[in-house]
This record gives sequence, structure tokens and C-alpha cells, in this order.
Amino acid sequence: MAAQTVASTTDSTSTVDLGPAAALSCRECGHRVPLGPVFACEECFGPLEIAYDYSAYDTEELRKTIESGPANIWRYAPLLPVPADVATKPNINPGWTQLVKADNLAAALGVDAGKLFIKDDSGNPTHSFKDRVVAQALEAARAFGFTTLSCSSTGNLAGAVGAAAARAGFRSCVFIPHDLEQGKVVMAAVYGGELVGIEGNYDDVNRFCSELIGDPAGEGWGFVNVNLRPYYAEGSKTLAYEICEQLGWKLPDQLVVPIASGSQLTKIDKGLQELIKLGLVEDKPYRIFGAQAEGCSPVSVAYKAGHDVVRPQKPNTIAKSLAIGNPADGPYVLDIARRTGGAVEDVTDEQIVEAIKLLARTEGIFAETAGGVTVGVTKKLIEDGVLDPTLTTVVLNTGDGLKTLDAVAGTGLTATIRPSLDSFREAGLA
Amino acid sequence: MAAQTVASTTDSTSTVDLGPAAALSCRECGHRVPLGPVFACEECFGPLEIAYDYSAYDTEELRKTIESGPANIWRYAPLLPVPADVATKPNINPGWTQLVKADNLAAALGVDAGKLFIKDDSGNPTHSFKDRVVAQALEAARAFGFTTLSCSSTGNLAGAVGAAAARAGFRSCVFIPHDLEQGKVVMAAVYGGELVGIEGNYDDVNRFCSELIGDPAGEGWGFVNVNLRPYYAEGSKTLAYEICEQLGWKLPDQLVVPIASGSQLTKIDKGLQELIKLGLVEDKPYRIFGAQAEGCSPVSVAYKAGHDVVRPQKPNTIAKSLAIGNPADGPYVLDIARRTGGAVEDVTDEQIVEAIKLLARTEGIFAETAGGVTVGVTKKLIEDGVLDPTLTTVVLNTGDGLKTLDAVAGTGLTATIRPSLDSFREAGLA
Repeated sequence: MAAQTVASTTDSTSTVDLGPAAALSCRECGHRVPLGPVFACEECFGPLEIAYDYSAYDTEELRKTIESGPANIWRYAPLLPVPADVATKPNINPGWTQLVKADNLAAALGVDAGKLFIKDDSGNPTHSFKDRVVAQALEAARAFGFTTLSCSSTGNLAGAVGAAAARAGFRSCVFIPHDLEQGKVVMAAVYGGELVGIEGNYDDVNRFCSELIGDPAGEGWGFVNVNLRPYYAEGSKTLAYEICEQLGWKLPDQLVVPIASGSQLTKIDKGLQELIKLGLVEDKPYRIFGAQAEGCSPVSVAYKAGHDVVRPQKPNTIAKSLAIGNPADGPYVLDIARRTGGAVEDVTDEQIVEAIKLLARTEGIFAETAGGVTVGVTKKLIEDGVLDPTLTTVVLNTGDGLKTLDAVAGTGLTATIRPSLDSFREAGLA
Repeated sequence: MAAQTVASTTDSTSTVDLGPAAALSCRECGHRVPLGPVFACEECFGPLEIAYDYSAYDTEELRKTIESGPANIWRYAPLLPVPADVATKPNINPGWTQLVKADNLAAALGVDAGKLFIKDDSGNPTHSFKDRVVAQALEAARAFGFTTLSCSSTGNLAGAVGAAAARAGFRSCVFIPHDLEQGKVVMAAVYGGELVGIEGNYDDVNRFCSELIGDPAGEGWGFVNVNLRPYYAEGSKTLAYEICEQLGWKLPDQLVVPIASGSQLTKIDKGLQELIKLGLVEDKPYRIFGAQAEGCSPVSVAYKAGHDVVRPQKPNTIAKSLAIGNPADGPYVLDIARRTGGAVEDVTDEQIVEAIKLLARTEGIFAETAGGVTVGVTKKLIEDGVLDPTLTTVVLNTGDGLKTLDAVAGTGLTATIRPSLDSFREAGLA
């Protein structure tokens, strides 16, 4: 089963219990197939995503169910491809992270007081939004009878997979380039699963993983972002759900979302659309802005050029968690930005570092480089008159500064003194 | 006001609104003084702590208020020295961290399934329990009209103070030894407050801070763990509240708590006693175990020798967040361990590292060295027949492994292969 990568309509795996998930549906041609560990359409090779059967819900009952649920993503179990009793199973239970009203940052950026919010996903178990998607993939892996959880990664994903597999009693096997920095190796290795260095670069690692999925050796292996990708990707919808619930069941007017593969942004849009259809929020226009680093800005470049397709780039930026030069969901991101009246913008590495420091000093949130990208892009979009500073705006921070300390390595002591009051006064600190 | 360190009964600061906090009361002689930024009794120089007026509460109403409160420590505002509207003020809002049912760790340690829990405080905003105490101190600082938040620190506290001050719009000034490791300096400096290196060791830093509090130069300064200590310390009670509520409003049978100054352990005991008195949990015996590193084990040594007083030690351990050689609350910890039928135990640095790895590989929780101390001590106490493996046991993890990466620096790749299936099979990974 694990060797199967393209869906077949004769597959019988729809008997698995993944709650409201009814089937897989091709994003391009709409072809439907039963639920299974597949990710590409047999008709057109388009990406498969989850189709739900939400028809049976009463809106106010659903709202009550959610509000009385656990303080993690499983409060939204009725809207996710997971069994109803998911909260009782061993998982890392991410989510319900803080939506911080960022009045100090608002003042610094010229946004109206009370209108700017940071959705701070550094509060997740392994301190990045990846815990959301991996927690989903884990439930799919369980449903399909997999025993090994796997991925290729150079950072956040490795930790999330290692931690989730450990909690749930899965074997884990994470593939990384063999010459990764020692700190990142330690963060991935501590969870005790297999951590395999591949002699080659990240592209070689990915190519090898695709080969493994198609081979009998990959039998029983769930690659969270390959053969489990349709389930995995749904985890990002929970960001949309949480933001709206935390705003009092209201849509924000504007969202600033980082773009790596672009999957997160498209699933946030999907989540908002679902809330509207289910009647959980009132329908009104919202604008989604995509944020990239200049050193890896294929979607931003395509947006500005008015293109519908994305030309791949060779990444060169400190925002390594966003450094995907050929983003699979790039065209969908362009669609969404244009349809919602948003935009896609990028910032330099210098602006990323400045934005990390700005966010830390105004709100006490220490973001990883991806958070510097979204805050930096927000600043730029306001200065350029693109983002409206009078509207409710939510900016995503998807990771933790402790994982990218190098970006702010220049930060240091503001003074050095002898342990005496005289020295203290001389330094002008009184 | 800031220069005042010993309470005076003629002080009029009790007009500040700190909710149910009625006065300060000496732990040694019971002498009461009005609420103010003081920490030592004018009669006997004993430590002052908060005395509450809880008489007006209806138990079931209180339970309902808590359960409908925010997913952070402010759900317990009616039991804390904070104004009733605290959740609306800018603060870092820590707490309501996960209580993880640790069945894999239980199996590894021989504890009955469903009986072992990790209270994982790495989920706090700056990833240590210090956010709880600093959030409290910040509210006291606001009530007393302070404008600068300060502390001496070598790690977790510096980050928590920097972040909280930034969020709340306070100036911050953190004092550290000038030769601290660069990584720790960056973590403290990123929040943009004053970060002052003192030419000397940690004792010199502390001595200087005490001098500053007594000087006009310290006017308007709230040192979270000195002149705001009675308020600060109360933050640890929230660990007790959360554990009991997360267990379904039940006391655990056994708790394993790290000891640095000992304040956290004594306040957890205070919190449990309050819940009993308020009728929120049924009264029954519980046992509190204290955990230290062998390289800084003054309380453990005193416990084993049957002493009531603690002889200071010169710390030498990798568990730097617990390395207080002369713990102020040591005698109270001895009292509590003996009164509740607990114990105090210590583990070697090697056992700490082993325990960090054990917790990560069984539960996917990457703890800092202090978490290695509590898990390691739990293992030792079970092996020695001191801790009962059939009873409900909660072990605290108070910090994050990302801050003490050096402890597990030896962890690395389990294999290195070429990007080919043949190489994969040769390595025995299939």
C-alpha cells in the first residue's frame, strides 16, 4: 500500500475512519477517489486533497462542541480528517496557540490600536507550526496501518516528526543532508529515532525519499509530506479556525502568511471558506498577503510580473524554513492573493533581521526567520500603501527564534560595568 | 518606595488593587504588613508572603469561573495577587501548559499505565516556568507604579523578564555576568532592553542588585525576584492549580519537583493546600519529592543526613538553572518533603543526560537539564522503592532543551548513506 502513489478508484481504503473526510478529490480535475495514502490524481497528476461531508452539521451545536473541546487542534476534530475520539489517542496535541494583540508593534508600524495581531505558533510542542501538520499526518498513518513515520527535512519538520512518532509509539526515520549544522542535527536526533544523513544536498534527499516510497523497502512507511500529504496539509486549516475563533468567531480583514511550498496559505484560505460555509463566521471580504524572502521569492516575482506560473529559483536566504525554490502550490497562492485582493511581497535578509528584533522588542515574541519575513513584509506593505492600517490584520509567526539564533547573533550587551553604583551611574543607566 | 526593603506597618500601599491579596505575612513570625514592594519582615527578617482573603467564595461558582476563564494562568485570577481584569492587560499570559499522560515513559520506568504524567512547562511563551512568576511580578510592578522591570540572571529568567517588559511597555534592565556564553546573551538581548554585563561572577551580580535596590538610583525599579519576590513566587502556585484541574480536580498522589531556591516546591504545596481549603479538590494525602543535581545538592544532602538546616555548596553541574548553592527556601522544602512523606534525591550529570534522552525518545518532549533532573530522580526513586509506581505521579519539566543543547551535543546521525536504495538496504534500515 505504501508503494502506491497514484490513486485508484478500485482502492477500498475508504473504510478507514477519518471522521468527516469522505474521499480524496483532485484539485485540478475534481476526480474523486477513496481515502488512502496517495497524493496525485490518476487522471491528471494534479494534487489530491480531502473532500468532506459536512452536510449533517447544525451550526450552533458545532460551535458549542468546538468551544467545549480541548485547548488544542482537536477542538476542531469535526472539521478535520481524524476520528471523533482523536483527543484520546497519543499525539503531540499542538495548537490553540496565542493570538497576541500587538498594540506596541501596531504603534511602531502605524496600524490603528487594537487592529494588529500576531498568531504565535512558537507555542507549539516543538515550537513551530509543523506540529499541526505532523499531528494530522500521524492520525492518517495510524488509520492506514503504517508503523514508521518519515520525512525529509532540514529543520522544523524533523523535530516535529521525531517528537510525534516518539509520543505515539511509531518508529521514525528522518532523512537529512549529511552535512547539516550540528545544532540542527542534535534537535532532530534527541527523539531517538533513525536520523539518516544522505550524502548529497536537500534535492538528493528528496529524490531518494520518492524512490523509497515506490520501493518495497518503503512498505509501511508514512512520509508525512509525500504519501500522507493530503492529510498533513489539512493541519494548516486549524490556523484559520483558531484565528477566527480567537477573534470572537469573526474573519480578519487581512492576513499575512509566509510562503514556502505555499500549502499553508492555500489551506488557510480553505479553512476560512469552510467557516463561512458552515455559518460559523459571517461572510465578508478578506485579503490574504503572501510573504517571502528576497533570496527565495519565486511567488513574489511571479505575482509582480503578473504571471500565473512560478519560475523556480535557487534559494539563498537566511530564512531557511521558507527556502523552497520551486513551490508546489505557488500557482494556487497567486490565485488566492489576486482573488482576495491581497498581494505577494518579499524582504531582504537585512529586513528580516530588523523585523525579528522589532517584534521581540515591541511584543516580547522571539520569532524565527520566517516570522521576520512576515513582520518585515507587513511593514513594507503598509509603507507602500498596499495593506490597510485601519483594518484588522493577523500576521503569522510560524516558528521560534531559538532555532535560528544565528540570525541575531550580533545582538549583545548594552553595557558592561563594574559591580558598583558609581560604575552604574557612569554608564548612564540610572 | 523602591528603596524600601523591610515592611513598615505605617505603609499605606494596601490601597493597591491586587485582587484577593489582603496583606503580606511573615512566614516565620506571622507579622502582617500592608501590600507593598517589600520582601523581609521588619520584626524577624523572615520572608514575607501573600495572605489572601478567600472567605467570600462559593466553591462551585469559583470552579465555574475558573473553567470558563482563559487558557492561561489568569483563569486562576481569583486566587492570585492580581486585579480581577488582569487578562485584559498586556502581559505574556503563560500557563495552561500540557499535562502529558506519559504511558511510554511509564512502561520504561515500571509505572502502571495511565499513572504517570509530565507537566510540560516548555510550552510557555519563553519556554520555561519562569514566565509564570515573571507575569505575576509584572502585575505587582504595575500596581506599585514601577516603570523598570529588572533581575539578575544567568538564563531563563533574563528571557522571561525581557519578553514580559517588552509586551507590557516597561523598560527592562537585566544584569548578567559579563562573560556569559554568547548564545545565552543573544537569547536575553533580543528583546531590546538594557542588558548589563557585570565584571564579576553571579554572586557579584546579586550583591550589586541588592545595593541598587537600597539606593535612590533604583527608584522605580521592580526586581522581580527581590523587592517583588512575594508576588513573583506566587506564580508557582499555578502549577499546582493546573495539575489538579487537568487531573479532573483531583490531587495527584505524588509530585516530583526540581529544587533551585526551593520556592517553586513550597508554592506548589501552598497551592495544593489552598485548593483543599477552598473545596476545589477532595482532601487526601499527597507526597512531594524534591529533585536536585548531585553537583548542587545542598537540600538532598541535608534531607539524607536528617538535618533541618541546609549547608551551602559551590555548584558544579550541567543543570545550571538549578545551580543555587545556598537555597533560601531549603529548610521549608525539608519540612514539606518530611511532612508529606516525600523525599529529596539527586542524580549525577550523566544520569541527567540519560534522563533527557529517555524523556525525548519515549514521549517526544525535549527537556532542559532541569527536566533531566526530575525524570532522573523519578527513575532513581522508583528503583529504590521510595516512589510508589502504582500511584498517580506528576513529574515537572520546567524548561526547554533548545536552551541547553550542549547537554546532548553528543547525539547525532544514526547512519550516513548514499542517496540510493542499495545503500539504504546495506545500512539495515529497510
